[in-house]
Amino acid sequence: MTNRARPRKPRYQEIADELRAEIETGVYDGGKRLPSEAGLMQRFGAARGTVRDAVAVLQAEDLTEAKKGSGVYLRTFERIRRDAAQRLARSNWGAGRAIWDSDLKGRRRHEDVEVEEVEAPEHIMAVFGMRPGSRVWRRSRLHRTEGRFVQQSTSYLPADLVAGTAITRPDTGAGGTYARLADIGHAPIRFREEIRSRLPLSHEAKVLGVTMSTPVMLIARTAFDIDGQPVEVNEMMLDSNSYVLEYNFNS
Amino acid sequence: MTNRARPRKPRYQEIADELRAEIETGVYDGGKRLPSEAGLMQRFGAARGTVRDAVAVLQAEDLTEAKKGSGVYLRTFERIRRDAAQRLARSNWGAGRAIWDSDLKGRRRHEDVEVEEVEAPEHIMAVFGMRPGSRVWRRSRLHRTEGRFVQQSTSYLPADLVAGTAITRPDTGAGGTYARLADIGHAPIRFREEIRSRLPLSHEAKVLGVTMSTPVMLIARTAFDIDGQPVEVNEMMLDSNSYVLEYNFNS
Repeated sequence: MTNRARPRKPRYQEIADELRAEIETGVYDGGKRLPSEAGLMQRFGAARGTVRDAVAVLQAEDLTEAKKGSGVYLRTFERIRRDAAQRLARSNWGAGRAIWDSDLKGRRRHEDVEVEEVEAPEHIMAVFGMRPGSRVWRRSRLHRTEGRFVQQSTSYLPADLVAGTAITRPDTGAGGTYARLADIGHAPIRFREEIRSRLPLSHEAKVLGVTMSTPVMLIARTAFDIDGQPVEVNEMMLDSNSYVLEYNFNS
Repeated sequence: MTNRARPRKPRYQEIADELRAEIETGVYDGGKRLPSEAGLMQRFGAARGTVRDAVAVLQAEDLTEAKKGSGVYLRTFERIRRDAAQRLARSNWGAGRAIWDSDLKGRRRHEDVEVEEVEAPEHIMAVFGMRPGSRVWRRSRLHRTEGRFVQQSTSYLPADLVAGTAITRPDTGAGGTYARLADIGHAPIRFREEIRSRLPLSHEAKVLGVTMSTPVMLIARTAFDIDGQPVEVNEMMLDSNSYVLEYNFNS
């Protein structure tokens, strides 16, 4: 037994509790800026680290969030709940629906798309078991929701597999890439998603418009067809402040 | 179309490539310290931010990792691959195996456990649909692997459900908590895992022994029995440097 297994509640928690109570009683309006670190240090007679922790608690509770270069604001953006199995169910894209619609439940979104045939990067060749020099179609997308960049994703599909399909065009049509793979007899049957998290590189922070201290969640998905052959690799970079990932499975 | 959808490869990448080549050709031995930021800035005649990005690239590739207060080292710790559905399969705990064994594949681990009956926290009461003042058994564990703290987890189980079982003791016996729930007719049939990521609070960084700039992955798992009743909530905090999460599912 050890106390390290469950840390006790210190001073910064009391400060967080007081600020939370104020937020909930509407002392600050939604979207409004929280007092500065200096202001909070003076008010609570606390050290910078303590005040930072107190604010971090509110951010961890989704009550506030840091905005690039301009301090901490009351959160207005509702996290996107990404239910992996539900969004990727064949009953979804198979019926011509966009996978994103199951994430956003009617919230508005915008997608910048770039499609290009390129030589497969080494780690992608490895997944597909390709010979060096093999070609893939790369689909790069930057996803915006309610004016906020939430995800950058890059899909790779073997060129010899998808040549001539709408997958090689910006608009893949109803049901998207997976519906098109189904059209050519390679419907994805199984998915593997691998998740990592780290701080963004500066250009990544710029792309997503997040601070350097906002972790990104990296999801690498591989889609397999009925023969167990990988037919797509999708590397996604998500703003951790914009998402909660959900996975449901049986024992 | 926009270039923002796929950022191009800048200077820090060239620096990362050069350092990677050196690492792979064994210029630095495993576990050895990388040159300091100042050293790299001088060597490459680059700005601090550029050098930081270059090092961040190597960390993103698992080649290096920051150690508390003492710089960047070549990585020696192999990420724990946590396959959620496999580790939680009834064929695993139902056969008396520890869930962790499927993560660690024979790697050594240590667990500090604290078990206590307490009043249910508000958000836990909400999940269980409990009346205010209801009691739960709280199991807090700090997990160490190869001398490294990798995860802190806290499980909550309704007191009226698990009273008198080994779940109320540090050692839950073969198969652990889920096997004991099965013993009393409440085997977990379905699981929901929700994943978030953020920077740690300072006490969290202390508990896990990570730097303040090492994100933690937060996994909140709810286990449901055959009647769809939640029987356990487990809140886990993982060192993002120690893990890759894997989820496999069908379309």
